[in-house]
Amino acid sequence: MKSFTDLNEVAEAIKAMPGKNDAVEAEALAHQNQLTKPPGALGRLEELAVFLASWQGRVKPSLKTAQAVVFAGNHGICAQGVNPFPQEVTSQMVANFTAGGAAINQLCAVSGADLNVVPLSLDTPTADFTEQEAMSEDELCEAMSRGAQAVNPDADILLLGEMGIGNSTVSSALAASVFGGDVARWVGAGTGSDEAGIARKQAVIETGLNKHGARTDLSALLAFGGREQAAICGAILAARAACIPVVLDGFICSAAAAALFGTAPGSLDHCLVGHVSAEPGHKHLLAAMGKSAILHLDMRLGEGSGAAVALSVLRGAVACHNQMATFETAGIAGA
Amino acid sequence: MKSFTDLNEVAEAIKAMPGKNDAVEAEALAHQNQLTKPPGALGRLEELAVFLASWQGRVKPSLKTAQAVVFAGNHGICAQGVNPFPQEVTSQMVANFTAGGAAINQLCAVSGADLNVVPLSLDTPTADFTEQEAMSEDELCEAMSRGAQAVNPDADILLLGEMGIGNSTVSSALAASVFGGDVARWVGAGTGSDEAGIARKQAVIETGLNKHGARTDLSALLAFGGREQAAICGAILAARAACIPVVLDGFICSAAAAALFGTAPGSLDHCLVGHVSAEPGHKHLLAAMGKSAILHLDMRLGEGSGAAVALSVLRGAVACHNQMATFETAGIAGA
Repeated sequence: MKSFTDLNEVAEAIKAMPGKNDAVEAEALAHQNQLTKPPGALGRLEELAVFLASWQGRVKPSLKTAQAVVFAGNHGICAQGVNPFPQEVTSQMVANFTAGGAAINQLCAVSGADLNVVPLSLDTPTADFTEQEAMSEDELCEAMSRGAQAVNPDADILLLGEMGIGNSTVSSALAASVFGGDVARWVGAGTGSDEAGIARKQAVIETGLNKHGARTDLSALLAFGGREQAAICGAILAARAACIPVVLDGFICSAAAAALFGTAPGSLDHCLVGHVSAEPGHKHLLAAMGKSAILHLDMRLGEGSGAAVALSVLRGAVACHNQMATFETAGIAGA
Repeated sequence: MKSFTDLNEVAEAIKAMPGKNDAVEAEALAHQNQLTKPPGALGRLEELAVFLASWQGRVKPSLKTAQAVVFAGNHGICAQGVNPFPQEVTSQMVANFTAGGAAINQLCAVSGADLNVVPLSLDTPTADFTEQEAMSEDELCEAMSRGAQAVNPDADILLLGEMGIGNSTVSSALAASVFGGDVARWVGAGTGSDEAGIARKQAVIETGLNKHGARTDLSALLAFGGREQAAICGAILAARAACIPVVLDGFICSAAAAALFGTAPGSLDHCLVGHVSAEPGHKHLLAAMGKSAILHLDMRLGEGSGAAVALSVLRGAVACHNQMATFETAGIAGA
């Protein structure tokens, strides 16, 4: 699956999603319990290794090829003054990614991920969602296709990240649209809004929610955008089709994925969440989607930064799972 | 400082401890705020990089040489049936470390740490603390000296871990002795005690506390042991003298360090805590010592495993701090 012509094709891709390999999962779990440690003593490292095994369909999972993709987009909602930074920072940061100067460059180098940067029509921001739908179905499907095409089918794991001035407002709108509740619980400071800025974000989102009505599935992406969120959803589906486990980054990634979750909750079953963001809505999103983040480091940068740090934890989990001695081979007495 | 003849020499070493470099800390903080990210957006990664800078005395800290040391000891308290595993597992696990088959071997390989294993008189367990003091002052100082001598003075960072059947009981006793309160809050399942086993641990600790009276400083190590806890304290002091920041592992390491904290709270100022253990007493210990763990992964293995995973996070923090572009060099617009 490399492109989506319309939302019907997306629905078909969701229907065709493969599941995890239960037999491999059981074998991986049994393998864990033979390793030289009290059962369960490696905590989440054990769970994570078994998770990767079950989705890769290999009792001993691999993280040889780790791909990180950062999607970038621009947002018409910036006309409403929701972000203290000017919109050209999106393309300036894309240049910074390409030049190797951003946080994600350093974090991918440390954790051993190949970084791809995919700018999405940065000169053509989405529409202002207080006035009309952010994207047409064609624009949505084009962005989802770009996301799907960005996935290396030979990757062992896919890390997803994003960059886009204004996209914390878009993400709060997506979260509020899919999961409802007080708008205030989904809105935070983003890249650095003050109290007045947060109030402005909240008012803008309320206007958008009233304008577009109930949107709890991918149609929320039509209403609120943006292209990088759509691309993230396309990449999640392409990874699933190729049995590649995914690590989502923070609030923006999770809000994008929420539109898929609202369409089919099982569509995120192959996704881990790298970290829980300091952006206050993120913990609510994770609770709503039944996800538990790997890291709690008060990060709120985006770019895939939390996912890249989490990859190092996954490498530890896989190294233990694949290379530890068993009680039998090491000649260690039992309890 | 490479050896301690008696506890007076330890007290002198504590008095002579160097502090962090405040000027370097301020410079490192100013550097962070020029990097291409909203200020504070890397959360704890920023704090950790500045912490390492302030203790290494270098605005751009290094993690080139990371040393992990696992100390192993045996405990007379095992005569009271506090652990479901036989005591020979301690030396069997030391052999496993040496052969490269344990979790810590894989985690050090992933995070880039050199592993040293230091078995401490495994054939001569400490005394049963329900009957007498676990160690004499000579034995304590000998073990602390072994700990100090194990530290590579050229290391950029020191990770501390331990192995010792029965040492969760010893650690619960140390924590209860230094910080008081209900014994029950300091006692957990360790390597895998059932309910009856936990009750036995608790009773044994209460007997020990009654026998030895108030011990809130290094004299708690005399009362309860063991050698690996004493060596951890010696290593912490040697690292401090050499301005090497330390990453403590889990419950056992923190309980060992508690004896130093009780002696001089500032003696742990150069120490990070790699993770918070699933062993329930650990979070209470961290709260009592004002420490916030880097990772929350429900691990409870020991060996330095949580510290080794945390080293990967530190590598990410340092890579961002040392190598990111500034707003000025990258030509990125401000807010």
